[in-house]
Amino acid sequence: MSILYPKRSIADITTQPVGVFDSGIGGLTVVHALRKALPAEDIFYLGDTARLPYGTKNQATIERYSLEIAGLLLSERAKIIVVACNTATALALPRLQDTLRVPVIGVIAPGARAAVKTTKSGRIGVIGTRATMMSGAYEQTIQALRPNATVISQPCPLLVPLIEEGMFRGAIAEEILHLYLDPLLLEGVDTLVLGCTHYPLLAPLISELVGEGITLVDSAENCAIAVAQLLKELNLLNRSNELGHLDVALTDESNPFLQTAERELSLTIDRLEKRVVQGVTMVIAEH
Amino acid sequence: MSILYPKRSIADITTQPVGVFDSGIGGLTVVHALRKALPAEDIFYLGDTARLPYGTKNQATIERYSLEIAGLLLSERAKIIVVACNTATALALPRLQDTLRVPVIGVIAPGARAAVKTTKSGRIGVIGTRATMMSGAYEQTIQALRPNATVISQPCPLLVPLIEEGMFRGAIAEEILHLYLDPLLLEGVDTLVLGCTHYPLLAPLISELVGEGITLVDSAENCAIAVAQLLKELNLLNRSNELGHLDVALTDESNPFLQTAERELSLTIDRLEKRVVQGVTMVIAEH
Repeated sequence: MSILYPKRSIADITTQPVGVFDSGIGGLTVVHALRKALPAEDIFYLGDTARLPYGTKNQATIERYSLEIAGLLLSERAKIIVVACNTATALALPRLQDTLRVPVIGVIAPGARAAVKTTKSGRIGVIGTRATMMSGAYEQTIQALRPNATVISQPCPLLVPLIEEGMFRGAIAEEILHLYLDPLLLEGVDTLVLGCTHYPLLAPLISELVGEGITLVDSAENCAIAVAQLLKELNLLNRSNELGHLDVALTDESNPFLQTAERELSLTIDRLEKRVVQGVTMVIAEH
Repeated sequence: MSILYPKRSIADITTQPVGVFDSGIGGLTVVHALRKALPAEDIFYLGDTARLPYGTKNQATIERYSLEIAGLLLSERAKIIVVACNTATALALPRLQDTLRVPVIGVIAPGARAAVKTTKSGRIGVIGTRATMMSGAYEQTIQALRPNATVISQPCPLLVPLIEEGMFRGAIAEEILHLYLDPLLLEGVDTLVLGCTHYPLLAPLISELVGEGITLVDSAENCAIAVAQLLKELNLLNRSNELGHLDVALTDESNPFLQTAERELSLTIDRLEKRVVQGVTMVIAEH
């Protein structure tokens, strides 16, 4: 991969932050995993809370939003952009990779690779937003790696609102999970990909409901491992011995879910800011 | 009320459409009520599906979005603008009324008036999105009309996603409604305002769960009555004997809920279009 970093030496670039974005707060599960895998890296996280969710919207809209948000991360000098959102990865990753002048990595390929490694029977279930499931991105990526795999996709549109309400336990969460997971259990999958970065917060309950015979694959965790690998290959790892900063910016600041996520993921946010997304495409053009 | 309609005579204005907007599809319940109350009117409906929901976002964002969408309705020659969204009414109505050069009417005042007329005990429950409930708009409007009324507000963040999934019945809908309605039942309200334009679609189940002792007030229906009254007062009623057209434009076209709403509300949409909202503030400025 050949990347141009004009006007800066390689030495400077390594100290630039890892840029991470999501439609909202859910991508903080990727940040949580990145903190573990790469504690020295500064992270700048952007949540497009003014326009979330992406998962119910169409490709043109999701591409436009993703380019705008990635543009904001470039203004923060991101050395790499992590798409911590399955929907944006499924529908906008190729466009982002074609357009941006830094490496861009998504959550789907790492999750798909981990699923293929995990499955014994070759029957893999995937849960995610409607947009991610309709895109067929997991199916295609998994079958490219293992052509005889059977992928059963289940859109779970109520899970994101449920998680944003902090309802990780209880009768409502269980009823909704049964609605979505029972058909996958009937299909006899042995591996279940959590194909939305919100879902790791529900993983304990999902594990209980599916039982021990099914292994969960966390796309957030596998994405962090892939980011670490890529930074190493590109010689972009931050060599500092100190813990990196975590800055979070949201496009709409009033999000009660942020506190839930901070607590559940034991994250410490060093700085919280607001960004207005209107007219942001100009920022991309200037870069 | 004095309104300027430059370059057009009053005769022309009456045939201009009624502009209606909502964050998404839910406002079609207001359109359904408008069709009944004002069958001769052309209606242009705009659903901001690219940025829905509004109910989890903050005031600055909701004001900006509402002004942009209202600007699009002005380009469609709307003679009046109906804010068919409780969240946008609660947080952006004063700003819209100050800015736009046509009458603007929301859903909250009509719903509040109907609730005050309905209640005997003076104990009124209101359900809506988190943003609507946090704004205190219903409480203030009801107490301005009846100072000794007790208003108990219950944010119901899971109801919009539930309705958009078409889940109007069943165990999950019942569990979620119990979560939100049981506290209101304990408070002994005798009137319940459906303070979100999505909620009329759940009204049959809500009625069953709250029982006969509680009267439901539908903000959509009461808004349509208020629109009819205002058009009459302003001498803006369309005097045609033919059924008016219904045009719908969405800012993101892929919304599976549209079909559900069309079916449940028995609406016939004459034309369906797409509008891109980026940079729309310029349209407002030109007007």
